[in-house]
Amino acid sequence: MQVAVLGPLGTYTHEAALKVFGDSATFNEKSSIADVLNGLSIEVPFGVIPQENSIFGPVVETYDRLRSTEKSFVRGEMTLEVEHCLLVKRGVQISQVRRVMSHEQALGQCCDFIEEKMPWVQKIKTPSTAAAAKALLDNEDDCAAICSSICATIFAGLEVLFTGIQNERSNFTRFYVVAHSQQTEVPKALSIECHMRALIRLSAPPKPDISYGVMQYLKVLDLDATRIDRRPSVEPIPFQSTYFVEVQASNTNALTRETGLDLWAKEVEHSVAKVAAIGGQADIIGLW
Amino acid sequence: MQVAVLGPLGTYTHEAALKVFGDSATFNEKSSIADVLNGLSIEVPFGVIPQENSIFGPVVETYDRLRSTEKSFVRGEMTLEVEHCLLVKRGVQISQVRRVMSHEQALGQCCDFIEEKMPWVQKIKTPSTAAAAKALLDNEDDCAAICSSICATIFAGLEVLFTGIQNERSNFTRFYVVAHSQQTEVPKALSIECHMRALIRLSAPPKPDISYGVMQYLKVLDLDATRIDRRPSVEPIPFQSTYFVEVQASNTNALTRETGLDLWAKEVEHSVAKVAAIGGQADIIGLW
Repeated sequence: MQVAVLGPLGTYTHEAALKVFGDSATFNEKSSIADVLNGLSIEVPFGVIPQENSIFGPVVETYDRLRSTEKSFVRGEMTLEVEHCLLVKRGVQISQVRRVMSHEQALGQCCDFIEEKMPWVQKIKTPSTAAAAKALLDNEDDCAAICSSICATIFAGLEVLFTGIQNERSNFTRFYVVAHSQQTEVPKALSIECHMRALIRLSAPPKPDISYGVMQYLKVLDLDATRIDRRPSVEPIPFQSTYFVEVQASNTNALTRETGLDLWAKEVEHSVAKVAAIGGQADIIGLW
Repeated sequence: MQVAVLGPLGTYTHEAALKVFGDSATFNEKSSIADVLNGLSIEVPFGVIPQENSIFGPVVETYDRLRSTEKSFVRGEMTLEVEHCLLVKRGVQISQVRRVMSHEQALGQCCDFIEEKMPWVQKIKTPSTAAAAKALLDNEDDCAAICSSICATIFAGLEVLFTGIQNERSNFTRFYVVAHSQQTEVPKALSIECHMRALIRLSAPPKPDISYGVMQYLKVLDLDATRIDRRPSVEPIPFQSTYFVEVQASNTNALTRETGLDLWAKEVEHSVAKVAAIGGQADIIGLW
Protein backbone atom coordinates (compact mmCIF):
# COMPACT_ATOMS: atom_id res chain seq x y z
CA MET A 1 0.00 0.00 0.00
CA GLN A 2 1.21 3.51 -0.83
CA VAL A 3 0.90 6.19 1.84
CA ALA A 4 1.63 9.91 1.38
CA VAL A 5 3.38 11.54 4.35
CA LEU A 6 4.64 15.00 5.19
CA GLY A 7 8.35 14.52 4.54
CA PRO A 8 11.20 14.17 4.46
CA LEU A 9 11.30 10.52 5.55
CA GLY A 10 12.50 10.27 9.13
CA THR A 11 10.18 12.98 10.52
CA TYR A 12 7.72 12.24 13.31
CA THR A 13 4.94 12.14 10.70
CA HIS A 14 6.77 9.27 9.01
CA GLU A 15 7.19 7.56 12.40
CA ALA A 16 3.44 7.90 13.05
CA ALA A 17 2.65 6.52 9.57
CA LEU A 18 4.97 3.56 10.16
CA LYS A 19 3.10 2.73 13.39
CA VAL A 20 -0.24 2.79 11.56
CA PHE A 21 0.61 1.16 8.25
CA GLY A 22 3.65 -0.99 9.17
CA ASP A 23 6.89 -1.31 7.27
CA SER A 24 5.38 -3.20 4.35
CA ALA A 25 3.80 0.05 3.14
CA THR A 26 5.56 2.41 0.73
CA PHE A 27 5.81 5.95 2.05
CA ASN A 28 5.76 8.80 -0.47
CA GLU A 29 7.42 11.85 1.03
CA LYS A 30 5.66 15.14 0.26
CA SER A 31 7.03 18.59 0.93
CA SER A 32 3.82 20.12 2.31
CA ILE A 33 0.51 19.17 3.88
CA ALA A 34 -1.20 20.45 0.72
CA ASP A 35 0.90 18.04 -1.35
CA VAL A 36 -0.09 15.11 0.88
CA LEU A 37 -3.80 15.91 0.43
CA ASN A 38 -3.48 16.62 -3.30
CA GLY A 39 -1.43 13.45 -3.76
CA LEU A 40 -4.21 11.11 -2.63
CA SER A 41 -5.64 8.88 -5.36
CA ILE A 42 -6.80 5.33 -5.98
CA GLU A 43 -3.12 4.34 -6.15
CA VAL A 44 -2.19 6.31 -3.00
CA PRO A 45 -5.33 5.80 -0.91
CA PHE A 46 -4.03 7.13 2.44
CA GLY A 47 -1.97 9.95 3.84
CA VAL A 48 -0.76 11.07 7.27
CA ILE A 49 -0.62 14.73 8.35
CA PRO A 50 0.00 16.38 11.74
CA GLN A 51 -3.15 17.82 13.29
CA GLU A 52 -2.01 19.21 16.64
CA ASN A 53 0.94 19.36 18.99
CA SER A 54 0.28 19.38 22.71
CA ILE A 55 2.64 22.33 23.28
CA PHE A 56 2.35 24.36 20.05
CA GLY A 57 -1.34 23.81 19.33
CA PRO A 58 -3.32 23.09 16.16
CA VAL A 59 -1.39 22.87 12.88
CA VAL A 60 -2.61 25.89 10.93
CA GLU A 61 -1.79 24.51 7.45
CA THR A 62 -3.81 21.35 8.13
CA TYR A 63 -6.91 23.32 9.05
CA ASP A 64 -6.41 25.79 6.19
CA ARG A 65 -6.32 22.92 3.70
CA LEU A 66 -9.32 21.16 5.25
CA ARG A 67 -11.38 24.33 4.61
CA SER A 68 -11.70 23.50 0.95
CA THR A 69 -10.80 19.84 0.62
CA GLU A 70 -13.34 17.67 -1.11
CA LYS A 71 -11.55 14.49 -2.01
CA SER A 72 -9.67 13.91 1.26
CA PHE A 73 -11.45 12.58 4.30
CA VAL A 74 -10.24 11.93 7.85
CA ARG A 75 -10.47 8.20 8.63
CA GLY A 76 -8.38 7.88 11.75
CA GLU A 77 -6.09 9.45 14.30
CA MET A 78 -2.76 8.55 15.85
CA THR A 79 -1.08 10.18 18.84
CA LEU A 80 2.68 9.91 19.11
CA GLU A 81 4.87 10.87 22.05
CA VAL A 82 7.62 13.01 20.59
CA GLU A 83 10.83 11.50 21.94
CA HIS A 84 13.85 13.41 20.74
CA CYS A 85 17.12 11.50 20.39
CA LEU A 86 20.72 12.56 19.86
CA LEU A 87 22.15 10.92 16.73
CA VAL A 88 25.71 10.88 15.46
CA LYS A 89 27.76 9.08 12.81
CA ARG A 90 28.57 5.64 14.16
CA GLY A 91 31.51 5.77 16.58
CA VAL A 92 31.39 9.50 17.33
CA GLN A 93 31.59 10.37 21.05
CA ILE A 94 29.64 13.23 22.65
CA SER A 95 32.94 14.89 23.61
CA GLN A 96 33.78 15.27 19.89
CA VAL A 97 30.55 17.10 19.04
CA ARG A 98 30.93 20.81 18.32
CA ARG A 99 27.72 21.45 16.33
CA VAL A 100 24.19 20.18 16.98
CA MET A 101 21.59 20.43 14.23
CA SER A 102 17.78 20.20 14.32
CA HIS A 103 14.51 21.96 13.68
CA GLU A 104 14.25 25.15 15.72
CA GLN A 105 11.46 23.74 17.91
CA ALA A 106 13.42 20.58 18.72
CA LEU A 107 16.53 22.59 19.63
CA GLY A 108 14.37 24.61 22.02
CA GLN A 109 12.72 21.52 23.48
CA CYS A 110 16.12 19.97 24.27
CA CYS A 111 17.88 23.07 25.60
CA ASP A 112 18.25 21.64 29.12
CA PHE A 113 20.04 18.53 27.80
CA ILE A 114 22.32 20.63 25.61
CA GLU A 115 23.12 22.98 28.47
CA GLU A 116 23.95 20.13 30.82
CA LYS A 117 25.75 17.63 28.56
CA MET A 118 27.30 19.70 25.78
CA PRO A 119 27.18 23.40 26.68
CA TRP A 120 30.01 24.16 24.24
CA VAL A 121 28.10 23.29 21.05
CA GLN A 122 26.92 25.61 18.31
CA LYS A 123 23.20 25.15 17.51
CA ILE A 124 22.30 24.99 13.81
CA LYS A 125 18.70 25.18 12.57
CA THR A 126 17.51 22.81 9.83
CA PRO A 127 14.14 22.75 7.98
CA SER A 128 13.12 19.51 9.76
CA THR A 129 14.52 17.07 12.33
CA ALA A 130 15.05 14.47 9.58
CA ALA A 131 17.02 16.96 7.49
CA ALA A 132 19.45 17.30 10.42
CA ALA A 133 19.98 13.51 10.51
CA LYS A 134 20.53 13.39 6.75
CA ALA A 135 23.03 16.25 6.97
CA LEU A 136 25.18 14.22 9.42
CA LEU A 137 26.23 12.02 6.51
CA ASP A 138 27.68 14.99 4.61
CA ASN A 139 29.47 16.56 7.55
CA GLU A 140 32.62 16.08 9.65
CA ASP A 141 32.56 13.96 12.78
CA ASP A 142 31.95 17.01 14.96
CA CYS A 143 28.17 17.06 14.29
CA ALA A 144 25.13 15.62 16.06
CA ALA A 145 21.43 15.74 15.16
CA ILE A 146 18.32 15.89 17.34
CA CYS A 147 15.57 13.80 15.72
CA SER A 148 13.41 10.69 15.91
CA SER A 149 15.20 7.39 16.56
CA ILE A 150 13.83 6.05 13.26
CA CYS A 151 16.45 8.15 11.47
CA ALA A 152 19.07 5.65 12.66
CA THR A 153 17.13 2.99 10.71
CA ILE A 154 16.57 5.09 7.60
CA PHE A 155 20.04 6.58 7.21
CA ALA A 156 22.76 3.92 7.27
CA GLY A 157 25.85 4.77 9.30
CA LEU A 158 24.10 6.71 12.07
CA GLU A 159 23.57 5.66 15.67
CA VAL A 160 21.53 6.84 18.65
CA LEU A 161 23.66 8.21 21.50
CA PHE A 162 20.84 9.35 23.82
CA THR A 163 17.05 8.94 23.81
CA GLY A 164 14.35 11.06 25.47
CA ILE A 165 16.53 14.18 25.69
CA GLN A 166 13.66 16.69 25.63
CA ASN A 167 13.00 18.99 28.58
CA GLU A 168 10.59 17.67 31.17
CA ARG A 169 7.25 18.77 29.74
CA SER A 170 5.48 15.96 27.94
CA ASN A 171 5.18 16.50 24.22
CA PHE A 172 2.68 14.69 22.01
CA THR A 173 1.74 15.16 18.39
CA ARG A 174 -1.59 13.97 17.11
CA PHE A 175 -1.96 13.01 13.45
CA TYR A 176 -4.91 12.54 11.12
CA VAL A 177 -5.00 9.56 8.79
CA VAL A 178 -6.62 10.92 5.64
CA ALA A 179 -8.11 8.85 2.85
CA HIS A 180 -8.73 9.50 -0.81
CA SER A 181 -12.47 9.68 -0.21
CA GLN A 182 -15.16 8.78 2.25
CA GLN A 183 -15.58 5.50 0.39
CA THR A 184 -11.95 4.39 0.77
CA GLU A 185 -12.11 1.14 2.73
CA VAL A 186 -9.83 1.00 5.77
CA PRO A 187 -8.14 -2.44 5.83
CA LYS A 188 -9.00 -4.19 9.11
CA ALA A 189 -5.36 -5.04 9.80
CA LEU A 190 -4.41 -1.36 10.14
CA SER A 191 -3.82 -0.07 13.63
CA ILE A 192 -5.75 3.16 13.12
CA GLU A 193 -7.20 4.26 16.43
CA CYS A 194 -11.00 4.21 16.19
CA HIS A 195 -13.02 6.29 18.61
CA MET A 196 -16.42 6.91 17.04
CA ARG A 197 -15.38 10.39 16.22
CA ALA A 198 -16.20 12.75 13.38
CA LEU A 199 -14.88 16.03 12.03
CA ILE A 200 -17.54 18.52 11.00
CA ARG A 201 -16.87 21.71 9.06
CA LEU A 202 -19.24 24.57 9.88
CA SER A 203 -19.44 27.89 8.06
CA ALA A 204 -20.44 30.74 10.33
CA PRO A 205 -21.37 34.18 9.01
CA PRO A 206 -19.48 37.19 10.39
CA LYS A 207 -22.51 38.92 11.90
CA PRO A 208 -24.54 36.82 14.30
CA ASP A 209 -26.80 39.79 15.00
CA ILE A 210 -28.39 39.50 11.58
CA SER A 211 -28.31 35.71 11.19
CA TYR A 212 -27.64 32.55 13.14
CA GLY A 213 -24.14 32.46 14.59
CA VAL A 214 -21.81 29.61 15.46
CA MET A 215 -23.39 29.11 18.89
CA GLN A 216 -26.79 28.38 17.36
CA TYR A 217 -25.23 25.88 14.96
CA LEU A 218 -23.35 24.16 17.79
CA LYS A 219 -26.51 23.93 19.87
CA VAL A 220 -28.48 22.45 16.99
CA LEU A 221 -25.64 20.06 16.19
CA ASP A 222 -25.97 18.79 19.76
CA LEU A 223 -22.97 16.41 19.75
CA ASP A 224 -20.14 16.12 22.27
CA ALA A 225 -17.29 18.28 20.98
CA THR A 226 -13.69 17.41 21.85
CA ARG A 227 -12.17 20.24 19.80
CA ILE A 228 -13.47 23.45 18.22
CA ASP A 229 -11.09 25.30 15.88
CA ARG A 230 -11.55 28.39 13.75
CA ARG A 231 -9.92 29.62 10.54
CA PRO A 232 -10.89 32.45 8.18
CA SER A 233 -13.37 31.31 5.54
CA VAL A 234 -11.99 30.72 2.05
CA GLU A 235 -14.76 33.04 0.85
CA PRO A 236 -13.40 36.59 0.49
CA ILE A 237 -15.75 37.95 3.17
CA PRO A 238 -13.79 39.65 5.98
CA PHE A 239 -14.07 37.85 9.33
CA GLN A 240 -16.35 35.11 8.06
CA SER A 241 -15.13 31.98 9.82
CA THR A 242 -14.96 28.27 9.15
CA TYR A 243 -15.17 26.15 12.29
CA PHE A 244 -13.88 22.60 12.61
CA VAL A 245 -15.72 20.68 15.30
CA GLU A 246 -14.38 17.30 16.30
CA VAL A 247 -17.15 15.33 17.99
CA GLN A 248 -17.45 11.92 19.56
CA ALA A 249 -20.23 9.49 20.34
CA SER A 250 -21.49 10.05 23.86
CA ASN A 251 -22.14 6.38 24.54
CA THR A 252 -19.70 4.00 22.92
CA ASN A 253 -19.79 1.28 25.55
CA ALA A 254 -22.84 -0.46 24.17
CA LEU A 255 -21.53 -0.51 20.60
CA THR A 256 -18.98 -2.69 18.89
CA ARG A 257 -16.73 -1.21 16.23
CA GLU A 258 -18.51 -3.10 13.44
CA THR A 259 -22.12 -2.24 14.23
CA GLY A 260 -21.29 1.02 16.01
CA LEU A 261 -19.68 2.99 13.22
CA ASP A 262 -22.75 2.74 11.00
CA LEU A 263 -25.03 3.91 13.79
CA TRP A 264 -22.60 6.69 14.63
CA ALA A 265 -22.45 7.78 10.97
CA LYS A 266 -26.25 8.03 10.93
CA GLU A 267 -26.27 10.06 14.16
CA VAL A 268 -23.72 12.51 12.73
CA GLU A 269 -25.62 12.81 9.42
CA HIS A 270 -28.83 13.50 11.32
CA SER A 271 -27.18 16.25 13.38
CA VAL A 272 -25.63 17.88 10.33
CA ALA A 273 -28.99 17.83 8.56
CA LYS A 274 -30.51 19.78 11.47
CA VAL A 275 -27.91 22.53 10.99
CA ALA A 276 -28.73 22.65 7.27
CA ALA A 277 -32.41 22.95 8.17
CA ILE A 278 -31.78 26.30 9.91
CA GLY A 279 -29.75 27.56 6.97
CA GLY A 280 -26.28 26.62 8.18
CA GLN A 281 -23.64 24.93 6.10
CA ALA A 282 -22.17 21.84 7.75
CA ASP A 283 -20.10 19.13 6.06
CA ILE A 284 -18.84 15.85 7.45
CA ILE A 285 -15.16 15.74 6.50
CA GLY A 286 -14.08 12.86 8.72
CA LEU A 287 -15.51 9.77 10.42
CA TRP A 288 -13.54 7.14 12.34
CA MET B 1 -1.79 59.59 27.84
CA GLN B 2 0.78 56.87 27.26
CA VAL B 3 -0.19 53.91 25.08
CA ALA B 4 1.90 50.77 24.49
CA VAL B 5 1.79 49.46 20.91
CA LEU B 6 3.34 46.56 19.04
CA GLY B 7 6.14 48.37 17.23
CA PRO B 8 8.05 49.70 15.54
CA LEU B 9 6.17 52.99 15.10
CA GLY B 10 4.65 53.15 11.64
CA THR B 11 3.10 49.66 11.71
CA TYR B 12 -0.62 49.11 11.24
CA THR B 13 -0.93 48.59 15.01
CA HIS B 14 0.41 52.11 15.50
CA GLU B 15 -2.03 53.40 12.85
CA ALA B 16 -4.93 51.70 14.71
CA ALA B 17 -3.75 53.15 18.04
CA LEU B 18 -3.55 56.65 16.48
CA LYS B 19 -7.18 56.34 15.31
CA VAL B 20 -8.30 55.36 18.81
CA PHE B 21 -6.18 57.63 21.01
CA GLY B 22 -5.42 60.56 18.67
CA ASP B 23 -2.09 62.24 18.09
CA SER B 24 -1.93 63.84 21.52
CA ALA B 25 -1.15 60.44 23.02
CA THR B 26 2.43 59.18 23.45
CA PHE B 27 2.98 55.80 21.84
CA ASN B 28 5.54 53.47 23.44
CA GLU B 29 6.81 51.00 20.86
CA LYS B 30 7.22 47.45 22.16
CA SER B 31 8.94 44.62 20.33
CA SER B 32 6.38 41.90 21.12
CA ILE B 33 2.76 41.42 22.14
CA ALA B 34 4.03 40.06 25.47
CA ASP B 35 5.95 43.30 26.03
CA VAL B 36 2.82 45.38 25.32
CA LEU B 37 0.82 43.43 27.91
CA ASN B 38 3.65 43.38 30.48
CA GLY B 39 4.25 47.10 29.92
CA LEU B 40 0.80 48.16 31.12
CA SER B 41 0.76 50.11 34.39
CA ILE B 42 -0.90 53.08 36.04
CA GLU B 43 1.41 55.31 33.95
CA VAL B 44 0.76 53.36 30.71
CA PRO B 45 -2.91 52.47 31.18
CA PHE B 46 -3.66 51.25 27.63
CA GLY B 47 -2.14 49.16 24.90
CA VAL B 48 -3.08 48.08 21.38
CA ILE B 49 -2.39 44.58 20.01
CA PRO B 50 -3.53 42.82 16.82
CA GLN B 51 -6.19 40.17 17.44
CA GLU B 52 -7.05 38.85 13.98
CA ASN B 53 -6.41 39.42 10.30
CA SER B 54 -9.21 38.67 7.87
CA ILE B 55 -6.91 36.67 5.57
CA PHE B 56 -4.38 35.12 7.97
CA GLY B 57 -6.67 34.46 10.92
CA PRO B 58 -6.29 34.85 14.68
CA VAL B 59 -2.94 36.15 16.00
CA VAL B 60 -1.51 33.18 17.88
CA GLU B 61 0.76 35.19 20.18
CA THR B 62 -2.15 37.34 21.34
CA TYR B 63 -4.20 34.32 22.35
CA ASP B 64 -1.19 32.57 23.91
CA ARG B 65 -0.56 35.59 26.11
CA LEU B 66 -4.22 35.98 27.06
CA ARG B 67 -4.15 32.42 28.45
CA SER B 68 -2.33 33.57 31.56
CA THR B 69 -2.79 37.32 31.70
CA GLU B 70 -4.23 38.68 34.91
CA LYS B 71 -3.52 42.38 34.87
CA SER B 72 -4.48 43.15 31.25
CA PHE B 73 -8.09 43.35 30.23
CA VAL B 74 -9.71 43.92 26.83
CA ARG B 75 -11.65 47.19 26.87
CA GLY B 76 -12.28 47.82 23.20
CA GLU B 77 -11.77 46.81 19.59
CA MET B 78 -10.76 48.59 16.41
CA THR B 79 -10.92 47.25 12.86
CA LEU B 80 -8.58 48.77 10.29
CA GLU B 81 -8.57 48.25 6.56
CA VAL B 82 -5.01 47.40 5.63
CA GLU B 83 -4.16 49.72 2.76
CA HIS B 84 -0.66 49.15 1.52
CA CYS B 85 1.16 52.10 -0.05
CA LEU B 86 4.37 52.43 -2.06
CA LEU B 87 6.74 54.87 -0.37
CA VAL B 88 10.01 56.30 -1.65
CA LYS B 89 12.47 59.03 -0.70
CA ARG B 90 10.96 62.33 -1.82
CA GLY B 91 11.53 62.89 -5.53
CA VAL B 92 12.27 59.28 -6.50
CA GLN B 93 10.36 58.03 -9.57
CA ILE B 94 9.01 54.50 -9.92
CA SER B 95 11.27 53.96 -12.96
CA GLN B 96 14.33 54.42 -10.69
CA VAL B 97 13.27 51.70 -8.23
CA ARG B 98 15.29 48.47 -8.38
CA ARG B 99 14.53 47.04 -4.91
CA VAL B 100 11.24 46.94 -3.02
CA MET B 101 11.26 46.16 0.71
CA SER B 102 8.50 45.07 3.07
CA HIS B 103 7.27 42.39 5.40
CA GLU B 104 6.89 39.05 3.63
CA GLN B 105 3.08 39.11 3.90
CA ALA B 106 2.82 42.62 2.44
CA LEU B 107 5.10 41.70 -0.48
CA GLY B 108 2.80 38.75 -1.19
CA GLN B 109 -0.34 40.85 -0.88
CA CYS B 110 0.98 43.38 -3.44
CA CYS B 111 2.44 40.91 -5.96
CA ASP B 112 -0.03 41.89 -8.70
CA PHE B 113 0.95 45.57 -8.44
CA ILE B 114 4.66 44.72 -8.47
CA GLU B 115 4.23 42.40 -11.45
CA GLU B 116 2.32 45.04 -13.41
CA LYS B 117 4.13 48.28 -12.54
CA MET B 118 7.67 47.27 -11.64
CA PRO B 119 8.32 43.67 -12.70
CA TRP B 120 12.08 44.26 -12.74
CA VAL B 121 12.48 44.85 -8.98
CA GLN B 122 14.19 42.65 -6.44
CA LYS B 123 11.96 41.90 -3.41
CA ILE B 124 13.61 42.24 0.01
CA LYS B 125 11.97 41.00 3.20
CA THR B 126 12.05 43.14 6.35
CA PRO B 127 10.87 42.29 9.90
CA SER B 128 7.92 44.71 9.59
CA THR B 129 6.41 47.11 7.06
CA ALA B 130 7.59 50.07 9.15
CA ALA B 131 11.15 48.71 9.18
CA ALA B 132 11.08 48.86 5.36
CA ALA B 133 10.08 52.54 5.44
CA LYS B 134 12.78 53.35 7.96
CA ALA B 135 15.38 51.52 5.85
CA LEU B 136 14.61 53.82 2.88
CA LEU B 137 16.40 56.62 4.71
CA ASP B 138 19.65 54.62 4.87
CA ASN B 139 19.57 53.37 1.30
CA GLU B 140 20.27 54.61 -2.23
CA ASP B 141 17.52 56.17 -4.33
CA ASP B 142 16.77 52.82 -6.00
CA CYS B 143 14.60 51.55 -3.10
CA ALA B 144 10.88 51.61 -2.33
CA ALA B 145 8.92 50.34 0.68
CA ILE B 146 5.44 48.85 0.97
CA CYS B 147 3.85 50.04 4.22
CA SER B 148 1.15 52.17 5.84
CA SER B 149 0.82 55.77 4.61
CA ILE B 150 1.48 56.97 8.17
CA CYS B 151 5.16 56.16 7.60
CA ALA B 152 5.34 59.24 5.36
CA THR B 153 4.30 61.30 8.41
CA ILE B 154 6.63 59.58 10.86
CA PHE B 155 9.79 59.44 8.77
CA ALA B 156 10.71 62.84 7.35
CA GLY B 157 11.86 62.85 3.74
CA LEU B 158 9.56 60.07 2.48
CA GLU B 159 6.56 60.38 0.20
CA VAL B 160 3.68 58.17 -0.92
CA LEU B 161 3.85 57.27 -4.63
CA PHE B 162 0.81 54.91 -4.76
CA THR B 163 -1.93 53.98 -2.29
CA GLY B 164 -4.10 50.86 -2.13
CA ILE B 165 -1.66 48.70 -4.05
CA GLN B 166 -2.72 45.38 -2.50
CA ASN B 167 -4.24 42.62 -4.64
CA GLU B 168 -8.01 42.68 -4.91
CA ARG B 169 -9.03 40.71 -1.84
CA SER B 170 -10.10 42.96 1.02
CA ASN B 171 -7.77 42.84 3.99
CA PHE B 172 -8.74 43.97 7.47
CA THR B 173 -6.95 43.68 10.78
CA ARG B 174 -8.85 43.79 14.02
CA PHE B 175 -7.14 45.04 17.17
CA TYR B 176 -7.86 44.76 20.88
CA VAL B 177 -7.49 47.81 23.09
CA VAL B 178 -6.17 46.40 26.35
CA ALA B 179 -6.15 48.19 29.69
CA HIS B 180 -4.02 47.84 32.80
CA SER B 181 -6.94 46.30 34.67
CA GLN B 182 -10.68 45.87 34.62
CA GLN B 183 -10.92 49.02 36.72
CA THR B 184 -9.05 51.27 34.28
CA GLU B 185 -11.52 53.97 33.30
CA VAL B 186 -11.91 54.48 29.55
CA PRO B 187 -11.97 58.26 28.87
CA LYS B 188 -15.24 59.18 27.15
CA ALA B 189 -13.43 61.12 24.42
CA LEU B 190 -11.72 57.98 23.10
CA SER B 191 -13.08 56.52 19.91
CA ILE B 192 -12.97 52.92 21.10
CA GLU B 193 -15.69 50.97 19.36
CA CYS B 194 -18.20 49.72 21.95
CA HIS B 195 -20.40 46.78 21.13
CA MET B 196 -21.54 45.25 24.41
CA ARG B 197 -19.08 42.46 23.91
CA ALA B 198 -17.04 40.34 26.29
CA LEU B 199 -14.14 37.94 26.08
CA ILE B 200 -14.47 34.83 28.20
CA ARG B 201 -11.66 32.37 28.84
CA LEU B 202 -12.83 28.78 29.35
CA SER B 203 -10.68 25.86 30.45
CA ALA B 204 -11.82 22.57 29.00
CA PRO B 205 -10.44 19.23 30.15
CA PRO B 206 -8.96 16.90 27.51
CA LYS B 207 -11.42 14.05 28.06
CA PRO B 208 -15.07 14.99 27.80
CA ASP B 209 -16.05 11.35 28.31
CA ILE B 210 -15.09 11.52 31.98
CA SER B 211 -16.08 15.12 32.69
CA TYR B 212 -17.93 18.05 31.19
CA GLY B 213 -16.47 19.16 27.87
CA VAL B 214 -16.38 22.48 26.08
CA MET B 215 -19.83 21.93 24.52
CA GLN B 216 -21.47 21.64 27.94
CA TYR B 217 -19.74 24.82 29.10
CA LEU B 218 -20.82 26.71 25.97
CA LYS B 219 -24.41 25.56 26.41
CA VAL B 220 -24.47 26.60 30.05
CA LEU B 221 -22.83 29.92 29.18
CA ASP B 222 -25.75 30.54 26.82
CA LEU B 223 -24.49 33.78 25.25
CA ASP B 224 -24.22 34.70 21.57
CA ALA B 225 -20.69 33.84 20.46
CA THR B 226 -19.04 35.78 17.64
CA ARG B 227 -15.70 33.94 17.88
CA ILE B 228 -14.48 30.72 19.49
CA ASP B 229 -10.72 30.15 19.53
CA ARG B 230 -8.61 27.40 21.04
CA ARG B 231 -5.04 27.21 22.31
CA PRO B 232 -3.24 24.56 24.35
CA SER B 233 -3.68 25.11 28.08
CA VAL B 234 -0.73 26.60 29.96
CA GLU B 235 -1.07 23.62 32.32
CA PRO B 236 1.31 20.83 31.26
CA ILE B 237 -1.54 18.42 30.54
CA PRO B 238 -1.37 17.15 26.93
CA PHE B 239 -4.32 18.28 24.78
CA GLN B 240 -6.03 20.21 27.56
CA SER B 241 -7.38 23.32 25.84
CA THR B 242 -8.11 26.91 26.74
CA TYR B 243 -10.99 28.41 24.74
CA PHE B 244 -11.52 32.10 24.14
CA VAL B 245 -15.16 32.90 23.49
CA GLU B 246 -16.05 36.37 22.32
CA VAL B 247 -19.71 37.03 23.04
CA GLN B 248 -22.10 39.90 22.48
CA ALA B 249 -25.36 41.09 23.96
CA SER B 250 -28.28 39.68 22.00
CA ASN B 251 -30.42 42.77 22.38
CA THR B 252 -28.53 46.05 22.39
CA ASN B 253 -31.19 48.22 20.83
CA ALA B 254 -33.02 48.98 24.04
CA LEU B 255 -29.88 49.91 25.92
CA THR B 256 -27.76 53.04 25.89
CA ARG B 257 -24.02 52.78 26.31
CA GLU B 258 -24.13 54.26 29.83
CA THR B 259 -26.86 52.12 31.37
CA GLY B 260 -26.30 49.15 29.08
CA LEU B 261 -22.73 48.24 29.89
CA ASP B 262 -23.54 47.70 33.57
CA LEU B 263 -26.48 45.46 32.72
CA TRP B 264 -24.38 43.61 30.18
CA ALA B 265 -21.57 43.10 32.74
CA LYS B 266 -24.10 41.58 35.13
CA GLU B 267 -25.45 39.28 32.42
CA VAL B 268 -21.93 38.06 31.58
CA GLU B 269 -21.05 37.56 35.26
CA HIS B 270 -24.24 35.57 35.77
CA SER B 271 -23.43 33.31 32.79
CA VAL B 272 -19.87 32.72 33.91
CA ALA B 273 -21.10 31.83 37.42
CA LYS B 274 -23.32 29.12 35.89
CA VAL B 275 -20.24 27.52 34.27
CA ALA B 276 -18.43 27.61 37.62
CA ALA B 277 -21.44 25.94 39.21
CA ILE B 278 -20.95 22.83 37.06
CA GLY B 279 -17.25 22.75 37.87
CA GLY B 280 -15.93 24.67 34.86
CA GLN B 281 -13.36 27.42 34.99
CA ALA B 282 -14.46 30.57 33.19
CA ASP B 283 -12.91 34.03 33.52
CA ILE B 284 -14.06 37.33 32.08
CA ILE B 285 -10.94 38.84 30.50
CA GLY B 286 -12.60 41.60 28.48
CA LEU B 287 -15.74 43.74 28.50
CA TRP B 288 -16.50 46.61 26.12
